[in-house]
Amino acid sequence: MGKVAKLVLLGTGLIGGSFSLALKRAGLVGEVVGVGRDLANLERALELGVVDTTSTDAVAAVQGADLVLLATPVGQMGRLMTAIAPSLPPQCIVTDGGSTKQDVVALYRECLPNHLAWCLPGHPIAGSDLSGAAAARYGLYEGRRVVLTPLVETRQEVVERLSALWRACGAEVFHMDAVEHDSIFAAVSHVPHLVAFAYMNALLDRRNVEACLDFAATGFRDFTRIAGSHPAMWRDIALANRDAVVGDLKSNIARLSELVALIEAGEVGPLTTYIERASNARVDWDARRKEH
Amino acid sequence: MGKVAKLVLLGTGLIGGSFSLALKRAGLVGEVVGVGRDLANLERALELGVVDTTSTDAVAAVQGADLVLLATPVGQMGRLMTAIAPSLPPQCIVTDGGSTKQDVVALYRECLPNHLAWCLPGHPIAGSDLSGAAAARYGLYEGRRVVLTPLVETRQEVVERLSALWRACGAEVFHMDAVEHDSIFAAVSHVPHLVAFAYMNALLDRRNVEACLDFAATGFRDFTRIAGSHPAMWRDIALANRDAVVGDLKSNIARLSELVALIEAGEVGPLTTYIERASNARVDWDARRKEH
Repeated sequence: MGKVAKLVLLGTGLIGGSFSLALKRAGLVGEVVGVGRDLANLERALELGVVDTTSTDAVAAVQGADLVLLATPVGQMGRLMTAIAPSLPPQCIVTDGGSTKQDVVALYRECLPNHLAWCLPGHPIAGSDLSGAAAARYGLYEGRRVVLTPLVETRQEVVERLSALWRACGAEVFHMDAVEHDSIFAAVSHVPHLVAFAYMNALLDRRNVEACLDFAATGFRDFTRIAGSHPAMWRDIALANRDAVVGDLKSNIARLSELVALIEAGEVGPLTTYIERASNARVDWDARRKEH
Repeated sequence: MGKVAKLVLLGTGLIGGSFSLALKRAGLVGEVVGVGRDLANLERALELGVVDTTSTDAVAAVQGADLVLLATPVGQMGRLMTAIAPSLPPQCIVTDGGSTKQDVVALYRECLPNHLAWCLPGHPIAGSDLSGAAAARYGLYEGRRVVLTPLVETRQEVVERLSALWRACGAEVFHMDAVEHDSIFAAVSHVPHLVAFAYMNALLDRRNVEACLDFAATGFRDFTRIAGSHPAMWRDIALANRDAVVGDLKSNIARLSELVALIEAGEVGPLTTYIERASNARVDWDARRKEH
């Protein structure tokens, strides 16, 4: 597998920093440049050996690069792609770590229209509450999954090379369509967050909310853990993956309305069937997960 | 504090068995009789020292008792109360461990109308996936909460005596109205379970459900943990606490519909405010919990 001579991280935090560390340990990268706007964070990245050099200038940094990883919030990626377009070397692979993919695909098409053969959108599934270069660590991607969503224009050799690099970080690599990616992650990640936000808002509307929060126990703790997630990040994800998310939220509303009707009517048989279907599926999921 | 001469457990599982063990360790109980229908379970209770004698006959067992704890599913409590009514000693305290309270209050009124001064509904908050006498253990109630919901007829000395016994088990005791109890537990326990069941059902309706379950990660795991709960138990709770639960589910539906509208309209400001309110409240709750 070809070594990366020069890796540029546009965004030097948990995702980018941990990618750098893993490639360094695998001996698969030469120079790593960390780009960002937060000087203290860049200084820390340098001290911790996450990167070899730092820069606040993405345009200059990408010169001579053979791999660029966009590891910022998705909201900053369009601006960065547009900025680097003129100075990007012809065969430099460009990828990203965004947790939605159709919107990022649209950015590649809009901002790097002449470079699409070398663009490969990606989503390393290694969420964490931590951020910044100090959160970067060896082994973050060990046993984790990375989804790559190639464009029709993406060269097969680019897919193979980037997949091999992620595998060298310890990750399991999956290839799928961006639409399928966004559908799956709406269902199992985005919508649970949004349902948990809605639940918290309904709870906060109650007259006795303080007593409720006082008696909330382990079921509440686990169910609402994701409701404590970063607001701006989840607002952006909800808007970026709007179609899939709205469809799933409407399904949840329909299923909740059905549940209300069953309880109001005291329909013991159908209510049992409804809960059993959910419970059995959750128990099976857990059993299969523990087999692995 | 007066020692209990004869405690009768109607239902010899986690809740009743652990109450017995805690009182035995505190030296606050003489004889403990375990009543049930599952002979193997009663045998185990005896072997493990959870009870001193066993019986399948509740009517005979309560003779000479000064404390009876109903620790079966709520669905069996009415039948048991009616059965023991004729043989219950005049000043025997009767309590229960049911997780809904208005419905159990109604059972006391219906089945033990001449004994209400000695009846005190209760809810030890020590849920567990485990059941049976083998699950009973010392220390289950250490640091846990017990809510007692006195009837207007309940004598003050009964409230004081039972509160003292629960405190001797290590629990923190709260007194509140049954309506308030059911409102609080609908909000922070029952509704999260029902929302999680609805979410699982919506997920199972998807064409790509297998791929979704395959990519489900830690957020999904925690959010849906309670969806794996016992179907019959949660069906009964939903029906027993129907009014409070339905009101809260409707609030959740309203808040979800509002969220759909904000996302569809791309209302960045209000969407941010919506998520921030939820996230801040959850972060604050966690911080306060960790202080204790």
